[in-house]
Amino acid sequence: MTETITLDYANCLSERVGDHGIERDALHHAAAQMSQLTASLNETRGTGWERWRDLPFDPMRREHVDPILKLTEELLPRTENLIVLGIGGSALGNIALQSALNPATYNLMPRDQRNGPRVFVLDNVDPNVIAQTIDEVKRVDPKLERTVVNVISKSGETAETAAQFMVLRSLLHQTIGESYGRHIVAITDPEKGTMRSICDREGYVTLPVPDGVGGRFSVLSPVGLFSAALCGIDIERLLDGARAMDDRCSQPDLKRNPAAVLAWLLIEFTRRGKSNHVLMPYANSLYLLADWFRQLWAESLGKRFNRAGEEVFAGATPIKALGTTDQHSQVQLYREGPNDKVIGLMEVARFEREVQVPGDLDVEPLRYLHGRSIAELLNAEKSATAYALMESQRPNFTIHWPAINAYHVGEFLQFWMITTAYAGLLLGIDAYDQPAVETGKVATFGLMGRPGYEEWREKVRRSLEGSEDRV
Amino acid sequence: MTETITLDYANCLSERVGDHGIERDALHHAAAQMSQLTASLNETRGTGWERWRDLPFDPMRREHVDPILKLTEELLPRTENLIVLGIGGSALGNIALQSALNPATYNLMPRDQRNGPRVFVLDNVDPNVIAQTIDEVKRVDPKLERTVVNVISKSGETAETAAQFMVLRSLLHQTIGESYGRHIVAITDPEKGTMRSICDREGYVTLPVPDGVGGRFSVLSPVGLFSAALCGIDIERLLDGARAMDDRCSQPDLKRNPAAVLAWLLIEFTRRGKSNHVLMPYANSLYLLADWFRQLWAESLGKRFNRAGEEVFAGATPIKALGTTDQHSQVQLYREGPNDKVIGLMEVARFEREVQVPGDLDVEPLRYLHGRSIAELLNAEKSATAYALMESQRPNFTIHWPAINAYHVGEFLQFWMITTAYAGLLLGIDAYDQPAVETGKVATFGLMGRPGYEEWREKVRRSLEGSEDRV
Repeated sequence: MTETITLDYANCLSERVGDHGIERDALHHAAAQMSQLTASLNETRGTGWERWRDLPFDPMRREHVDPILKLTEELLPRTENLIVLGIGGSALGNIALQSALNPATYNLMPRDQRNGPRVFVLDNVDPNVIAQTIDEVKRVDPKLERTVVNVISKSGETAETAAQFMVLRSLLHQTIGESYGRHIVAITDPEKGTMRSICDREGYVTLPVPDGVGGRFSVLSPVGLFSAALCGIDIERLLDGARAMDDRCSQPDLKRNPAAVLAWLLIEFTRRGKSNHVLMPYANSLYLLADWFRQLWAESLGKRFNRAGEEVFAGATPIKALGTTDQHSQVQLYREGPNDKVIGLMEVARFEREVQVPGDLDVEPLRYLHGRSIAELLNAEKSATAYALMESQRPNFTIHWPAINAYHVGEFLQFWMITTAYAGLLLGIDAYDQPAVETGKVATFGLMGRPGYEEWREKVRRSLEGSEDRV
Repeated sequence: MTETITLDYANCLSERVGDHGIERDALHHAAAQMSQLTASLNETRGTGWERWRDLPFDPMRREHVDPILKLTEELLPRTENLIVLGIGGSALGNIALQSALNPATYNLMPRDQRNGPRVFVLDNVDPNVIAQTIDEVKRVDPKLERTVVNVISKSGETAETAAQFMVLRSLLHQTIGESYGRHIVAITDPEKGTMRSICDREGYVTLPVPDGVGGRFSVLSPVGLFSAALCGIDIERLLDGARAMDDRCSQPDLKRNPAAVLAWLLIEFTRRGKSNHVLMPYANSLYLLADWFRQLWAESLGKRFNRAGEEVFAGATPIKALGTTDQHSQVQLYREGPNDKVIGLMEVARFEREVQVPGDLDVEPLRYLHGRSIAELLNAEKSATAYALMESQRPNFTIHWPAINAYHVGEFLQFWMITTAYAGLLLGIDAYDQPAVETGKVATFGLMGRPGYEEWREKVRRSLEGSEDRV
């Protein structure tokens, strides 16, 4: 039997955490409602903004994977630096995949020990980071002959990505000359938009941001798959895992559907005042998956209006934490502060590398560590934390990973995306829009002097200027 | 006049954010109370657990800095890799200083462009990361002749740091032989404890964790200063900044004391249901200062009992975010979700590096970016976000940094530590203990079979085992 990631939610129940938990009966009673929602999702899947559900399945899968594998095969021998330009949903998945599935020291390793180029994801407009990254890339590849820029933008008009792209494109052009376009892979709208027209004009290789796949649901599309594949990640296994999880989460029986269980629990907890949702892996490499989760959960569920147009200010606040590290930083608060959180722990059964504590430092208080493995200690800390949280009546759950590999990462991603779809239905909101981001965009255009946005410049200046409340 | 970091709190006031803000009158009325608290802190400073207040001042300052500078001068020519072992307060400050004041690409740079050795902070017991780090260190220094291990542990009994230390110590011993101790710098209790006795027996160089300085308040002691100094950070300027801020925050006049203003505002907001406190720098290098802040704020204020022994479950949840990146991830929630947050933005006036958007990609929708600087865009996004938050009646404040350098980082650190001291007084809790961490520690000892903790092993197993609530 194939191993799978599993969800242990016992510590969410009142049997374990008293009045702060959910009664087993309440969960049982939710079965009918959740089975209806499953039927509803099974019906809408693959349509509208739920086309992401079909990314791990043919025909979309083959349409994406085959060109990616062909392209990476061509690029791999001539690429030493990959610079990814994107922000939000166009970067978080890429970063999470690299961090989960490549070594922590990946960029430091010599080429023959890496499965692909060094990778730099620029997901911000920080001038220091951009300049330092360019310096470092040019240090090992002064003529940029072995450097590829992967720009990811559906429209091409996101200010951050556009600005970065203009900087990198110009650098490539000036350094390489007319053939610079061979060093750009653009992932963008296949039909329309500013980036599309640039690509057509300049003749870049492109891969699609598929129609009906929003940024935060795009990690299993070319948006996330291309940079992963080029850096040696097994994207077929990733999609296999996602597909298998999709099957599990399509089951009407609540007891067999982990996404339905978790969505119901988390939204019920939210209703009961526990709207801070922590994701705390006990494994460094899974930590940045929590950043991906943060966007998914925050942007999908944080909505002022429900579908009926009522003002609800819905949403839950995703928080990332790292075990054991944050036991020495956050657990004091999680146990003794306001009981307003649900804490999701993640535990890995088998680590790829084994490290043992040697027995040659013989002092009595540390003798219990002799001959024990580091993984054993890590997982003991995790159990101890689950216990300590339970003792303080703080609801928590554990996602068990048999190991860290592409298959289980694929499972994890599809699991949370489907959980989010359920959560959207339970809250009665649209999980696929992000209306509140608009004001910041147009205000930025105004401040940057983009024609047509002059009124915004005035609005912002008038509102913020002249503060004497400064100390 | 010396430039300083400043706090702009205008967007916390009801004039700006309506009913969700604080009335100017309420702030005025707090002046008398806050001036009393200032007097009280000025009296207790330098005593008990408030000895950290004096770290930037002589005589403590000279007692720490002089041996550190002497030691780093000796080590610098023979050190290519620095491995720091510590967790929580013994790591977060070190990581934050490196990240704030050294380039993002620091470890990738060749030696002649770096001001010190490559630095690896191991603040977790992840076997993959430990093994990968050792591989990488040995790759460039197979005989470990140019490698220094800096272990930081007051007692020596923190399981994670102890286990890591036993692994690294044994590796050094076996590779280098009897002189391996020259490659260890221990920062520990100057008088007592397990690590102290190991150091005395093995003859390591040591630096003190000063008495009365708790982990989360120790960044300006040798705990944070040693690795910083070895990696080229100007620790004198760091302490100059902290000292100058300490002076500002000792002033009884509320209007001139940024720590008193911010503490009062944040605790008042907490009382009014806004207990999620976001710190969101618009600069990648300041992002990990938010991790340092997370520990300080969570562990200091998250307390079940107040000083009178009443059950209060006090505390606020610190959240880290990064601008502009998280505009594309969290701001949708911050604007439209539950109005339960106060959002602290950080803005940098001058970046060390300048990057300009070139004008050679001429498409109309992007023309407004031609010739603009990346920093200009970054700061426009910050203003746009402050405006957008204000428009949605979400309280926010801005910490303005003239530039990113050691002086201003020192100001920032002392500013938040003093803010935390005020917040503890306002909540009536002990900001310096962490009683809830104990259960996890002893439960871990139990699970790992440490003699004397058998009952905990049974307790944890009995409580967690046999869950059928797994899907």
